[in-house]
Amino acid sequence: MKTIKNYAKKNILIYNSLTNKKEKFIPIEYNKIGMYVCGPTIYNYIHLGNCRTFIFFDMLYRYFKHLNFKVKYIRNITDITHLELKLNCVNNQMEIIQKYLLNFYFILKKFNILSPNIEPRSTGHIIEQIINIKKILNKKFAYINKGSIYFDINYYNKIFGNYGNILNNIDLNKEVNLNNKFIEEKKNYYDFAIWKKSNYGMNWESPWGKGKPGWHIGCSTMSNKYLGNYFDIHGGGIDLKFPHHECEITQSNIINNNNYNLAKYWIHTNMLTINNKKMSKSLNNFIIPNDIINGKLNITNYKKINPIIIRLYFLQTHYRKIINISNKSLINTEKNYKILLNILKKIKKIKPKLKTSSNININNIYKIFYLSINDDFNIPLLIYNLFKINNIIDKCINKELNINFNDINKLYNLIKIFLIDILGLKFKKKRKINFKKIINKIYEIRNEMRKKKNYYFSDKLRNILNNFLCIKDNKI
Amino acid sequence: MKTIKNYAKKNILIYNSLTNKKEKFIPIEYNKIGMYVCGPTIYNYIHLGNCRTFIFFDMLYRYFKHLNFKVKYIRNITDITHLELKLNCVNNQMEIIQKYLLNFYFILKKFNILSPNIEPRSTGHIIEQIINIKKILNKKFAYINKGSIYFDINYYNKIFGNYGNILNNIDLNKEVNLNNKFIEEKKNYYDFAIWKKSNYGMNWESPWGKGKPGWHIGCSTMSNKYLGNYFDIHGGGIDLKFPHHECEITQSNIINNNNYNLAKYWIHTNMLTINNKKMSKSLNNFIIPNDIINGKLNITNYKKINPIIIRLYFLQTHYRKIINISNKSLINTEKNYKILLNILKKIKKIKPKLKTSSNININNIYKIFYLSINDDFNIPLLIYNLFKINNIIDKCINKELNINFNDINKLYNLIKIFLIDILGLKFKKKRKINFKKIINKIYEIRNEMRKKKNYYFSDKLRNILNNFLCIKDNKI
Repeated sequence: MKTIKNYAKKNILIYNSLTNKKEKFIPIEYNKIGMYVCGPTIYNYIHLGNCRTFIFFDMLYRYFKHLNFKVKYIRNITDITHLELKLNCVNNQMEIIQKYLLNFYFILKKFNILSPNIEPRSTGHIIEQIINIKKILNKKFAYINKGSIYFDINYYNKIFGNYGNILNNIDLNKEVNLNNKFIEEKKNYYDFAIWKKSNYGMNWESPWGKGKPGWHIGCSTMSNKYLGNYFDIHGGGIDLKFPHHECEITQSNIINNNNYNLAKYWIHTNMLTINNKKMSKSLNNFIIPNDIINGKLNITNYKKINPIIIRLYFLQTHYRKIINISNKSLINTEKNYKILLNILKKIKKIKPKLKTSSNININNIYKIFYLSINDDFNIPLLIYNLFKINNIIDKCINKELNINFNDINKLYNLIKIFLIDILGLKFKKKRKINFKKIINKIYEIRNEMRKKKNYYFSDKLRNILNNFLCIKDNKI
Repeated sequence: MKTIKNYAKKNILIYNSLTNKKEKFIPIEYNKIGMYVCGPTIYNYIHLGNCRTFIFFDMLYRYFKHLNFKVKYIRNITDITHLELKLNCVNNQMEIIQKYLLNFYFILKKFNILSPNIEPRSTGHIIEQIINIKKILNKKFAYINKGSIYFDINYYNKIFGNYGNILNNIDLNKEVNLNNKFIEEKKNYYDFAIWKKSNYGMNWESPWGKGKPGWHIGCSTMSNKYLGNYFDIHGGGIDLKFPHHECEITQSNIINNNNYNLAKYWIHTNMLTINNKKMSKSLNNFIIPNDIINGKLNITNYKKINPIIIRLYFLQTHYRKIINISNKSLINTEKNYKILLNILKKIKKIKPKLKTSSNININNIYKIFYLSINDDFNIPLLIYNLFKINNIIDKCINKELNINFNDINKLYNLIKIFLIDILGLKFKKKRKINFKKIINKIYEIRNEMRKKKNYYFSDKLRNILNNFLCIKDNKI
């Protein structure tokens, strides 16, 4: 088993957005993984599409830890707001952040998402960001205009020539409409703010007057602070691939004086769409996690969905494929969830025979499971294989296949590792009991007793209901 | 009712630690309250004594909101660690903060503590703290020594003469042992660091080199930023009265160029003791909230305690009295909780009569309840009065007293406001059912049926148990 695990550890394939191909995962430093994932902006509820990203990288984090890598997982919180047009008061901005930050924490707990090692906040790294901005300015890769500072893409491309083509495939010569009030301070359409002048609301003193750091510089700064100039994995939703990640890489190369492109592997999770449209805050078509969990959505016929089923829903589609949310697919996931949930119970039902030789090769199952995940985190394939194991277990129960006592325990542990430790499909400990049905059944029996004039027992049943449930006769 | 509420609003007495007497509460600005409470340091679990403070101020916040004040409640998070002796790496420090911060949020939710309006973090206000340190330095009330900066108490007292006697009663002339390595950089024993040089771990660039702000300057800075130079209430545990709050006031008077002492009313909650000793992190005798909730403490005979009962436990003793935790008093609280919990149910049991004149004066009850809270938040008195109302309700049920339909509803709302909205004794919505007892009862009846050869019904009962509970015969 240890050998298999070590083999698995050395044979992970990751689709790298930097190279657009699957590559063998070799950590920069032996046995260690530094992983940075762009976290939420918290001036609104996170939407269900954001959760897909956080659930996927949570699974990665769990898998790497299971393989005994030493993982440093950093997921930032973007709490510098750019809502100054509506909210000029820092108190209001901070109140909004307070509300949505707590909501974020409680939602992620519902999805059984583990805490990353560190969740740095952009407001907690202003000085570090100012230092990085200074470095860029000193090297002439940025210019100041009206108190704001912009990264100079023309100058960068004169020297390096690759902005727009590092992670993406942007034709910078394609004409873009410059008649936009947001770009009036910029020399070039693709220039981006690394410092924004701001006299109202959230702002800080700086060598350039009052203002706040741009969004991109925050991620470059926090990833560097906690993972160094070059780390293993940088992840995020695919909507961040351009411009956010392209900008992060560009400015990091300048700050760090290298051409490492910040991280060795860049991983992007695909979108969650609704009616085949991207779910996003800007399009205002987003689903709030609590609404789907609490049954407030038309799309699920107002049925409450267990957040762990939503977790499985996201994981069972490959992370690089679009998911278009639908009730039908959610119902299917619920069925899958029940089948998966049942596997552990079924293993316990197998009648163990001490002396039987076993038809089941546990090591082989481990291999198949690891191979599935190792192929660019092919969780759909893993689930397919879990279903195959489910069939094998049925055959063991029906005695079509033999399994000995020892292998039953091994099989149980194996399934537990993949379902609970890695996929994070935490199962409720408490028995779910349809209480109302039981009560109604007892009433039925009681009424039948009364009809048959069996008052001695009918009274006993009534007493149970009265004493323990405080339910008065016929009031159910 | 509205008149009573308005009267209550204008007649709150608060024991002010600044003056050591009860004073009428008159907000600085009409109808608005700014309240700052010193929050947790999060490089360990918060202990149960901390929870007492947070629960008390949560009740204040609820009460002020109930009275329709516009409240801004700020409770900071001290996340600048001073653990550099053990942990020289900022990553380790940030990981510790991450762990305990999440624990803090989840614990406070269990105690039904509302989120303050803003929870500013000291790491999120480094620049603002540096600006305040500069102000103190420029006015010569601090000196630099070996890269650290200390507030100069001798100089301050030459000018103002009141350090040690603003909130406290410290005799500065009393000889103190100066042979302490922590004070070797200081001129005077009572001088305190507003900036500490630090080359390792958590630190920031500053005009004085790498270092971090002192603890006291954080609270002065954050309270000023969100509540202004002078606000209504500053609260905290009594252990913070000296030196923390004395230092906060002293330096704030310099920063703000006034002698307002930062807040109009200073409120301090008393200690939670264990074996009559202060519970504190430094004494290492603290109870972790999760341990008492999950039944892991000798002191509660390993019984799980509902966090809402712990909430009541703290509130039912006046906030200025010491509580020495004991199993006996917790058991008593549980009884009180059940009685209080039951009041609302009992009101519903009163048979309403439409035409009856009422012996109950609802307005009078409101007055009595408000008077209790208004007398320096005398919650023990409020609970005493709730018990008196409980007796009155019994008399209404027994028809010794008359209450009409209208007043029943009013009484229900009144009790709900004080128990749930103000005291925050949230009751579980779900019925708590002793399931095992019911199952055992059904089995008893079934066995008796079998003995009496009443197989028809005994089989029916068995089917219930089998189908709904998946319990096999006799396996309970």
